[in-house]
Amino acid sequence: MVDPRKIKFIAFDADDTLWHNESLFTLTQDKFKQLLLPYHTEEWIGQKLYETETRNIEHFGYGVKGFTLSMIETAIELSEGRIGGDEIAQIIGFSKEMLRSPVEVFDGVEETIQRLSQTHRLLIITKGDLFDQESKIARSGLDRYFSHVEVVATKTAETYEKILSRQNIPRENFMMVGNSLKSDVLPVTMLGGTAVHIPYATTWAHEEVGAEELDGHDFIRLEDIRDLTGLLVGDE
Amino acid sequence: MVDPRKIKFIAFDADDTLWHNESLFTLTQDKFKQLLLPYHTEEWIGQKLYETETRNIEHFGYGVKGFTLSMIETAIELSEGRIGGDEIAQIIGFSKEMLRSPVEVFDGVEETIQRLSQTHRLLIITKGDLFDQESKIARSGLDRYFSHVEVVATKTAETYEKILSRQNIPRENFMMVGNSLKSDVLPVTMLGGTAVHIPYATTWAHEEVGAEELDGHDFIRLEDIRDLTGLLVGDE
Repeated sequence: MVDPRKIKFIAFDADDTLWHNESLFTLTQDKFKQLLLPYHTEEWIGQKLYETETRNIEHFGYGVKGFTLSMIETAIELSEGRIGGDEIAQIIGFSKEMLRSPVEVFDGVEETIQRLSQTHRLLIITKGDLFDQESKIARSGLDRYFSHVEVVATKTAETYEKILSRQNIPRENFMMVGNSLKSDVLPVTMLGGTAVHIPYATTWAHEEVGAEELDGHDFIRLEDIRDLTGLLVGDE
Repeated sequence: MVDPRKIKFIAFDADDTLWHNESLFTLTQDKFKQLLLPYHTEEWIGQKLYETETRNIEHFGYGVKGFTLSMIETAIELSEGRIGGDEIAQIIGFSKEMLRSPVEVFDGVEETIQRLSQTHRLLIITKGDLFDQESKIARSGLDRYFSHVEVVATKTAETYEKILSRQNIPRENFMMVGNSLKSDVLPVTMLGGTAVHIPYATTWAHEEVGAEELDGHDFIRLEDIRDLTGLLVGDE
């Protein structure tokens, strides 16, 4: 297990680790399904949207704008081109709502981050759209606690290796905290760093990994981000 | 003027400095205008698209995906909602074409970058969509010459200051090379760094600055990126 005295650098994932994000996509998907109900069932719409998103990731990457283009494409396909301009304008409206919606920081995050920032150097390592992520970090009010923010296109072992080397962080002093086994936990344990998994209620299907992939990977699972203080500082 | 012996770090803008980019947007705008000709004149379509883009930058930032959402929004507005699903699917098709089109590196870039990489540390500092820019840098075949790549949401003096401090680059040893006075030249001269302007044939209207803003800012203007070798290495 982890030797807490060794950890000097803690990096946090952002979406669904520090604040709600997936719930915003789920809410928008619900609106999208309502909009297309005249054409198909909710289940079918959800399945087709998921297929379009998966197919488009190579073109669009992650984030609200790519998601919106996938919604529009799905709407045209499912309505066989009968969808009207007004309905597509509504979909673009959904995306603007998502992009300006308030950032809902999870309970316990601010107190934990603030406490840890007194004893550790804190970073954010997050995937997604650069413009959108920087805006969310600023709106969260948490940016002053982090000495460095990296927005990356993918999170592989190579991604983490590059960041650690550029930031002069020895891997034995590094801890990554996040909700995704695939992006936050496995690549970090592969490098010999320490990983903490804090599961989120619903995890995006693209981020799921099978139990067999976890074999041989040691990591810590916490139910609540507040438990980090006990683990690392030991004064609570 | 610049003392070439002082320059140890050279950062390059990417789009329209190392490779064609604006021409790809211009080409797509032409296709977009053709598509909407049944509804309006080319001039009016161009003007309305520009207005939509400007209004949407606060939501969408820079890049192909935001541009595509702005095209769709403009198409709906200009057709008063009469635009069909098939035409909108064509617009989404334009964006995928843009995202996978080959990166056309300018003449002289590779030889220049290769030569300078032997004597200087080279960086890329580029604005835009992270996913798209990383993909273009990889497709350009130039990535091996650069020791560091920064994709940023905006290019202000503060942006450059952060990068220089993080990379331990003294400003007197730093040169920025790019096609935009607003993003590549003025903020760098404000910091006391050296800036080289290599104008591009057509400059995006959002990036234009008035002559009065250039007062008091010393910078170097080159017609061709190949001239950097003479300026910095002096052996050609």
